[in-house]
Amino acid sequence: MTAPLDFYFDFSSPYAYIAAMRIDALAAKHGRAVNWHPMLLAFAFKAIGTQPLVQYPIKGDYAYRDFLRSARELDIPLTLPEKFPIGTVTAARAVLWLKQHQPAQAVPFAKAIFQAYFVAGRDISAPEIVYAVAAELGIDAAALQAGCESDAIKAALKQSVDDAVSQRGVFGAPFIFADGEPFWGADRLDMLDRWLVRGGW
Amino acid sequence: MTAPLDFYFDFSSPYAYIAAMRIDALAAKHGRAVNWHPMLLAFAFKAIGTQPLVQYPIKGDYAYRDFLRSARELDIPLTLPEKFPIGTVTAARAVLWLKQHQPAQAVPFAKAIFQAYFVAGRDISAPEIVYAVAAELGIDAAALQAGCESDAIKAALKQSVDDAVSQRGVFGAPFIFADGEPFWGADRLDMLDRWLVRGGW
Repeated sequence: MTAPLDFYFDFSSPYAYIAAMRIDALAAKHGRAVNWHPMLLAFAFKAIGTQPLVQYPIKGDYAYRDFLRSARELDIPLTLPEKFPIGTVTAARAVLWLKQHQPAQAVPFAKAIFQAYFVAGRDISAPEIVYAVAAELGIDAAALQAGCESDAIKAALKQSVDDAVSQRGVFGAPFIFADGEPFWGADRLDMLDRWLVRGGW
Repeated sequence: MTAPLDFYFDFSSPYAYIAAMRIDALAAKHGRAVNWHPMLLAFAFKAIGTQPLVQYPIKGDYAYRDFLRSARELDIPLTLPEKFPIGTVTAARAVLWLKQHQPAQAVPFAKAIFQAYFVAGRDISAPEIVYAVAAELGIDAAALQAGCESDAIKAALKQSVDDAVSQRGVFGAPFIFADGEPFWGADRLDMLDRWLVRGGW
């Protein structure tokens, strides 16, 4: 029972941000590591015929309220950015590139990107902001940029997102697998915690 | 802080069933009563542009698994009926009629309908099954049937569903209000519990 948890996220999702702030500590409680997988919700939404939560009338209003309330309960700082939701392809590619080339930096970078967007309100859809956040962590921004612009990393992200949706059934974010069991949503982290304690039920 | 909780449900929703089995005890812990409001999800889905969860590819598969897992964790018996989802208009009208005419019977009847469907696998979309369940509780089935077929109760349910969606923002089930604060989903009952303890946050 020591397989890592698989954690799928899109940087544009407030619920993924909340989960990102909790997942490593939760996994560590159970002696687990976490494998962070950037994904792009737009592809999942297209595959199943949904759209971003906040674009639905009525349900969208509830979602805005719930984003903020969910973060408040956990004392996680969250300010909804003016530009929301956004495309996050460069940031996702950057995480993949770091996983391949500077793996120790990948998760700190992912957390920094989430915080840049949901705490500092920086526009992480802009590649130059993505590289600036990396530079602030001491990552070589020029090397990262070259990596993100490479065909190899573009293909790797596309493959990763395709696999997530069509092979693993990821249709939203955050989405977590524990020993193959799927958990969708920041509000399922407590259930995941109990699942790991009991080894399923 | 003694206002009742408003509990909106559709008899076709497994998550509403799970919440129905928990909501009275949860409310009682906080000295609250529960006002049970039958609604029809089809109207809400039409208003916001969604469809029944299980009709989405991929997401639907997850939902089936999650219905059963959520019930198992809470030791709530749940067998997914062969015919699912179903229309529940007669059962919803019956709850409204009982609330008006035999209010002490309304909640026991609602719970019995949920159990008839999700435990015994009876087809509660059929009016004769709805009246049979009522008769088993000692309710006068003929009077109930006349009530359900009356224009007054048809209009009352239509009004109630319209108000739920357009006035209160109910877009799914279960949907609960505590002092105006909305909570959507069986998986939000623990959050609701904490909210009532702390008086919001």
